[in-house]
Amino acid sequence: MTQRAGGRPPVTRRVLDILGAFSAEHPALSITQIARRAGLPLSTAHRLTGELTCWGALERDAGGLYRVGLRLFEVAALAPRGPALREAAMPFLEDLYEATHENVHLAVLDGLEVVYIERISARDAVHVFSRVGGRWPAHATGVGLAMLAHSDRDLQERAIAAPLRRFTDRTIASGPRLRRALAEVRRTGVAISDGQVETFALSVGAPVFGPDDTVVAAVAIVVPNTGWDARSLTPVVRASARGISRALGAPRAVRPPETAMHDR
Amino acid sequence: MTQRAGGRPPVTRRVLDILGAFSAEHPALSITQIARRAGLPLSTAHRLTGELTCWGALERDAGGLYRVGLRLFEVAALAPRGPALREAAMPFLEDLYEATHENVHLAVLDGLEVVYIERISARDAVHVFSRVGGRWPAHATGVGLAMLAHSDRDLQERAIAAPLRRFTDRTIASGPRLRRALAEVRRTGVAISDGQVETFALSVGAPVFGPDDTVVAAVAIVVPNTGWDARSLTPVVRASARGISRALGAPRAVRPPETAMHDR
Repeated sequence: MTQRAGGRPPVTRRVLDILGAFSAEHPALSITQIARRAGLPLSTAHRLTGELTCWGALERDAGGLYRVGLRLFEVAALAPRGPALREAAMPFLEDLYEATHENVHLAVLDGLEVVYIERISARDAVHVFSRVGGRWPAHATGVGLAMLAHSDRDLQERAIAAPLRRFTDRTIASGPRLRRALAEVRRTGVAISDGQVETFALSVGAPVFGPDDTVVAAVAIVVPNTGWDARSLTPVVRASARGISRALGAPRAVRPPETAMHDR
Repeated sequence: MTQRAGGRPPVTRRVLDILGAFSAEHPALSITQIARRAGLPLSTAHRLTGELTCWGALERDAGGLYRVGLRLFEVAALAPRGPALREAAMPFLEDLYEATHENVHLAVLDGLEVVYIERISARDAVHVFSRVGGRWPAHATGVGLAMLAHSDRDLQERAIAAPLRRFTDRTIASGPRLRRALAEVRRTGVAISDGQVETFALSVGAPVFGPDDTVVAAVAIVVPNTGWDARSLTPVVRASARGISRALGAPRAVRPPETAMHDR
């Protein structure tokens, strides 16, 4: 936790650190756990948790443990890069889902990581690690490569220079390889991530653009890589990304496909 | 805003009031608007908003306005009555969606209001007012009636005694009528709300139960009431609600339909 020079952190920070104490691995916490994970004295944790619970940002379950509350969900539903984006994208995601009945992802970029905004999965779809609200390194995913390739040059160079975590033998784990992969995404209009996170999963992603023509999200289909050919999924994923971009008011989505015109 | 006797409200409360200043009608706010809506001096609003933005709970858009941030979306994704519930329900909601290609709702009860956790809508579905994270009075909706009918007796009596807002000629707007409607829901296993919110929309809802056998959510199909018969939707909505209950570990979902046994 960041401390102010010679003093305690501001209360805002302590309140937010309590919220940040909850994670996918630890969605239910006791006061003692909250205090330890947020780095706060027990009495402070007790008082602030009480105030958060009173407002509805936290809830107490039947076993007395604290969990993230419904009121926080309501406020977070207003996040433009969360549910608001999802709302515009949903009809297109549904169409993508019906095309394959596997997994469909919608994600945004936060630094060098993607954050999943939506996931539609069939009951018997190929298993994927993604989770709504979850993060994953951008270089290893179809949605991440699709967004990185269209991000500003500085961010791309940061990604190429960064240590790239390897998940499988096929993960893009070197800067030069990532540079080539990003160029390929710009050339073809889609990002194909085959066996990069799990050896058996194939992801085909495409970038979504906003009203100012910058990349704001990416959409992807994730299928088992046995029985599916990335080329057969490319047109539907590109069409879906263009449809979402158009719904968001992106100028390029009303022009003919840009990549096909000058790169091919 | 609640004030402590003779003093300023606690900082936690002021931080939360800043978050609460954002709404569906006002998703983007200037510092001046934040200060006014949260009832704070401009200097305080400025400082706290800065701290919230630094953490990622708020974000500044290209026009300099503040919006709810991605980090808050990530934390809120851990809410057990929000995305965690949605995750368990999603495959069943997809099946429901494919049965009609109209609107599918998943909601929870908060006092006498429902909060929508998920909405799947076709591009050309009948228009509905629901919004993920949005609230609506329980007595007027299929999901709300389904949950109220299986809530504890005290809450039901509070709902029956409360003023019931009328949206159309067909809204259940009297206590005795609500009491009969709730009994009917328990008898049939589904809640049918026909033209109660908008004259042209028909909602068929069913309750979802949790591991302790209490009602935790409801699912509904919303279709135009011309061309659809509620009776034709009843089996699929009931089956879906039972499927979600079973996925959540509800004991009654593994027994035969309970309402059909002793109420008929």
